[in-house]
Amino acid sequence: MQGTIETILSRRSIRSYTHEPVARSDITMVLEAGRWAPSGLNNQPWKFIVVYNRDTIEKMAACTRYSSIVQNAGVVIAVFLDTSQMYDRTKDVQSIGAAIENMLLACCELGLGAVWLGEILNNKEQVNLILKAPESLELMAALAIGHPGERKTTSSRKELKEIAFEELYGPQWR
Amino acid sequence: MQGTIETILSRRSIRSYTHEPVARSDITMVLEAGRWAPSGLNNQPWKFIVVYNRDTIEKMAACTRYSSIVQNAGVVIAVFLDTSQMYDRTKDVQSIGAAIENMLLACCELGLGAVWLGEILNNKEQVNLILKAPESLELMAALAIGHPGERKTTSSRKELKEIAFEELYGPQWR
Repeated sequence: MQGTIETILSRRSIRSYTHEPVARSDITMVLEAGRWAPSGLNNQPWKFIVVYNRDTIEKMAACTRYSSIVQNAGVVIAVFLDTSQMYDRTKDVQSIGAAIENMLLACCELGLGAVWLGEILNNKEQVNLILKAPESLELMAALAIGHPGERKTTSSRKELKEIAFEELYGPQWR
Repeated sequence: MQGTIETILSRRSIRSYTHEPVARSDITMVLEAGRWAPSGLNNQPWKFIVVYNRDTIEKMAACTRYSSIVQNAGVVIAVFLDTSQMYDRTKDVQSIGAAIENMLLACCELGLGAVWLGEILNNKEQVNLILKAPESLELMAALAIGHPGERKTTSSRKELKEIAFEELYGPQWR
């Protein structure tokens, strides 16, 4: 078993999946990871809808230009901000991001591939209609999940010295 | 070494710290974890300022009602959204949350205690002045970090059946 930091550093978006079904027990564990994210005032403003149904997945796929990724997924988790639970939009949206990251990391540890889809927000009202979600739920992302059908792709990040500073803005973190 | 999901589920806010110094190498690892968070279009809109200086920490402590936590910390990391790198505020703020969660999880694995402070945003302009950060950097959170001076406190979350649904909004995830 690899450690947490190793999982964080080695996680990559996986956009292609095999036809092997994704166990419901694995998805429960992924949801548990999301559930335990931190949130301001512990308000837990997230709601999740898990979609296995192929017809529903096809309808969701039609809401994004990345339709082939969604169609190929074994399961899709729609992640919502429950605006009825909001207390500060910025902090609430941050906590949604924390919950999503927890779910992506859990997928890694379970040997599942996953990708965080944001472009689908361009049609978020349509997704709400498909999933019969009330207007109070605002779509934040869709996670496409499946058994990896591709190797990890390479990715890159800005160097630490470009993004981290020492004591004040300016001096690079050494 | 515990696994990633175990770290996610067992992470708790730690608000009291010993006087043992926090190694710079540990903070570098925490920043690495933040650096490798996912972001929309991989725009990586985060900037971090690491503060060890006691005078600066005192000034930051004066910006929040949780001043004793900040004063007690061995190191404080101010997390900013670099608005010059933004492409979509909601998605950018989500990715900031993902980076923060990565850093908190890294702290856990390194045996450090940490807490995500959001209340300090009420005085975010003042924090920018203290850290000489330009207006283009918007404070998103401060992380107080140190060697744990308290045991993990208990915490709670909503039950999965309250937050996760099956196929459509309504039916509880079983």
